[in-house]
Amino acid sequence: MQRLIVLLTDFGLSDPYAGVMKGVILNLNPQAQLVDLTHSIQPQNVRQAAFALMNSYRYFPEGTIFLVVVDPGVGTDRRPIAVRAGGYIFVAPDNGVLSYVLHEWNDYVAFELTNQQYQLSDVSFTFHGRDIFAPAAAHISQGIAVETFGAQLTDVMVLPAPELVLNEGQWIGEVVHIDHFGNVITSLGQLRWLEDRLTLMPRLGDFFTAVSIQPESCRLVLNGHTVEGIQRAYGDVERGTLLSMVGSNGYLEVAINQGHAASRLDVEIGDQVTLNLE
Amino acid sequence: MQRLIVLLTDFGLSDPYAGVMKGVILNLNPQAQLVDLTHSIQPQNVRQAAFALMNSYRYFPEGTIFLVVVDPGVGTDRRPIAVRAGGYIFVAPDNGVLSYVLHEWNDYVAFELTNQQYQLSDVSFTFHGRDIFAPAAAHISQGIAVETFGAQLTDVMVLPAPELVLNEGQWIGEVVHIDHFGNVITSLGQLRWLEDRLTLMPRLGDFFTAVSIQPESCRLVLNGHTVEGIQRAYGDVERGTLLSMVGSNGYLEVAINQGHAASRLDVEIGDQVTLNLE
Amino acid sequence: MQRLIVLLTDFGLSDPYAGVMKGVILNLNPQAQLVDLTHSIQPQNVRQAAFALMNSYRYFPEGTIFLVVVDPGVGTDRRPIAVRAGGYIFVAPDNGVLSYVLHEWNDYVAFELTNQQYQLSDVSFTFHGRDIFAPAAAHISQGIAVETFGAQLTDVMVLPAPELVLNEGQWIGEVVHIDHFGNVITSLGQLRWLEDRLTLMPRLGDFFTAVSIQPESCRLVLNGHTVEGIQRAYGDVERGTLLSMVGSNGYLEVAINQGHAASRLDVEIGDQVTLNLE
Repeated sequence: MQRLIVLLTDFGLSDPYAGVMKGVILNLNPQAQLVDLTHSIQPQNVRQAAFALMNSYRYFPEGTIFLVVVDPGVGTDRRPIAVRAGGYIFVAPDNGVLSYVLHEWNDYVAFELTNQQYQLSDVSFTFHGRDIFAPAAAHISQGIAVETFGAQLTDVMVLPAPELVLNEGQWIGEVVHIDHFGNVITSLGQLRWLEDRLTLMPRLGDFFTAVSIQPESCRLVLNGHTVEGIQRAYGDVERGTLLSMVGSNGYLEVAINQGHAASRLDVEIGDQVTLNLE
Repeated sequence: MQRLIVLLTDFGLSDPYAGVMKGVILNLNPQAQLVDLTHSIQPQNVRQAAFALMNSYRYFPEGTIFLVVVDPGVGTDRRPIAVRAGGYIFVAPDNGVLSYVLHEWNDYVAFELTNQQYQLSDVSFTFHGRDIFAPAAAHISQGIAVETFGAQLTDVMVLPAPELVLNEGQWIGEVVHIDHFGNVITSLGQLRWLEDRLTLMPRLGDFFTAVSIQPESCRLVLNGHTVEGIQRAYGDVERGTLLSMVGSNGYLEVAINQGHAASRLDVEIGDQVTLNLE
Repeated sequence: MQRLIVLLTDFGLSDPYAGVMKGVILNLNPQAQLVDLTHSIQPQNVRQAAFALMNSYRYFPEGTIFLVVVDPGVGTDRRPIAVRAGGYIFVAPDNGVLSYVLHEWNDYVAFELTNQQYQLSDVSFTFHGRDIFAPAAAHISQGIAVETFGAQLTDVMVLPAPELVLNEGQWIGEVVHIDHFGNVITSLGQLRWLEDRLTLMPRLGDFFTAVSIQPESCRLVLNGHTVEGIQRAYGDVERGTLLSMVGSNGYLEVAINQGHAASRLDVEIGDQVTLNLE
C-alpha cells in the first residue's frame, strides 16, 4: 500500500492551512508519509501549479498520491476529483490543474469525490483542502480505490498547452515560470507539447540533435533583449552574464550566472519569447 | 504511545532554528513524527499564535504533542510549561500563547518544566526552543508523563478573548488575522468567545439560524468600507468583488474573490469591525 | 542503518526543487526520513550555508546524512563529494560549503561522487541536487559506504574562517549572519575559530571567564553605533532597546529586545564589528 502523499497548494506557509490538512490526514491514517512539493504557488494560479506538478511527479515512487489544492472555485459547483494516471493518483479540483500531467497519459481514469463517507462530517464552503481533498488522499493511502468515491468522469477539464509555434527557422513560445533564482523558464522545449510531431524526448538538446539545429547559431529574443547561442551550464559564461540554456526539465530558459534574470530583463509570466534558429 | 509532534513558532524558515529543534527531538526519539503547523507567526506575536493553534489543534489525532515556541520572554523568569487539555499535550512558554485553547477546556492540568534531566545539558538564554521545549516534547513522545517535569501550576497565564460586543442589532469585533490570501478574519463568530450566552457551535451560520438573523440583511463596516449581505462562498460574487462570508473556522471574514482584501481595504490586525444585523 | 537525511539548500520554497529531491530519495529508499534544515540560504551564498550547517549539525543524531546543495558552480568541473566527519556524513559540492564543519575535524575523509551507478541515468547541467546529490544521499542511507562512490580526495576546498583579530584590549570581527528576527550575529566568539590559542569552548561567556574579561565593561561598536556592556538575555533590557549578548551558538550578537536590530543599525553581512574589552 502506498502511504506517500505529496502536497501542492497555493496556501503559503504563514497560515496553518497546510498543517491542518496534514492533521486531517494523520488523524485518518497515522502511517501516511507527507512531503511538501510547494505551498507557494501564486494564489489561484492553476497553470503555475500544473507546470510544477508536471515537472515533479515522475521523480516520486510509483503509486504516490498527489494532493493538489489550487482552488479558486472552492464552494462553487466545480467538482472535486481523483484521477489515476501514469501509475500515480492525483486528488484535485477539476479546474485544469492536472492538465499538463494528463497531456502525457491518454488512459487516465477520473472519478468525482462525492461519497460523503470519505469527507469530514462538516464541509465548509471555503476549505475543501481540509474537508474533502485531504480526507480523500488519506483514505486512498489506506487502500480505498478511487472508484469508490463517486461517478466516473469523462469530461475532466484539460487546459491547452502553453503557446509554442514552430515555424521554419523560428520558434515562438512564452514565459511559463520564473523561479526562485530569477531564471526565466519558457515553453520552448519539452517535446511533450508537440504531440503530433515527435515522440517524447527528455531534453531540448536531444531535439536539437534530432532536427540538426546548431545551438551556437541560435538567437533568443525576449522583451527586447537578445541572447546569442545556447550554453550548457550557468558557469559557461562569466558571473553576471546573461545566457540561455536548456534547464533541468528540458525547457529553454534565460538566466544570469549567479544573478536574477527576471529582474534584469523585467520579464513576466506570459511574455512572448522567440528563438531564431539560424 | 503518541509519536506525533506538531511545531508552531515565529522562527521563520530562513534560519536553521526549526530544523535544529527537529534534530534535538530526533536525537532523543528517532521514532518521533514531525509536522510543521507554521513557523511564520509574526515575531513575538503571542495572540496570532494562540489563534492559529486554536483553529488547528482539533484536526490532529488525539494525544498529539504541540510544541509552541513564540517566546518574547526567553531568558527571563517566564516559566516553560507543559499542559494537558482536551486530549492533547501543549509544550510552550507560559505567556498566554495557549489562551484560546484553554478557553475551551476548564479541566486542563499544567506543569512547570524544571526537571533538568529533560533539558539539554547546556541551556542558553536565548533558545529555549532547542534547549528546553524540544527536549520536553521528545521525552513526552517517549511516554514520560507531564507530571514528571515539575510542579503543578494553577496560575497559567490566560489572555482575554479578542473584542466581541453583542448589542441588540449590532455586533462589534476586531480583525484577528489576515491570511496569505489577504482574507481578513474577524472575531465575529466562533461562539466559544461567548461562553456565558451560548454553547459551542461550529459555524456562524448555525448562530444566525439560532438567533433568527438574516445573512442577506446584514451590513458589515470595516475601515470605512461597507459590505452588504453575507455570502456562502468566494465564487458567489464576481471576480474582484468584495464580500463577507463565514470562513472555514467559523469566523466572519472579509474577502475579495480571487483578490487581496487586506491590501485593498488597508486593514490591520486589531482594526474594529461592525456588523449591523438589520 | 541511519535513515535520517537533512536537507540544506538555497532553492527556496516557491519552486518544487526541494520536493523533487525528496521524491528522488524516497524513490530509492522509501524508509528515508527527511528533515529540512533550511532552503532559504541566499542564492549561491556558500559561506552562509557553511555557517548554518556548523551551528546545526551537532544537534542531530550520530550518523545523520546532510544533503547540502548551494552550488553556484553546477555544470562546471567543481566536484561533487561525500565527506565523513565527526560521526556524520555530508554530501555537497566541493566549493567550501563544508568548511566550518571541517575546521572542527582534522580526521575527515572525502570521496568524489563519480560512480554513475549511484546517479540518475540522465544527469542535467543545472540540477545536480536532483541528479547526483540526492541519489548519493539516498544510497548512503541504504548502507552504501562513501568509499564506493569514487576516488578519495585530499584537497577538499576549505575556506578560511571569518575575520577575527584578537588584539590586547580590542577584538575585531565581522557580521556573519542576520537572522529572521533581525539579530546581528558576529564572528566574535565560538572559540573554534581560534584553533591555535584555545581549545573549543561552547560559549563566549566561558571565554570571558577564562581570560578574565568583565562583560559589563565591554563596549561594542558596529556601523557607528555603540553598545555598552554584554547582557545575558533579550529581556534584560527594555523593549525596543539595543543590546549585545552571547547568542545561542556562542557568538556575540547585537539585538533589540522585541525589535529588528539589523534594520535599525542598517547593517549587512561582512560589516566590521569591534569589541573594546575595557
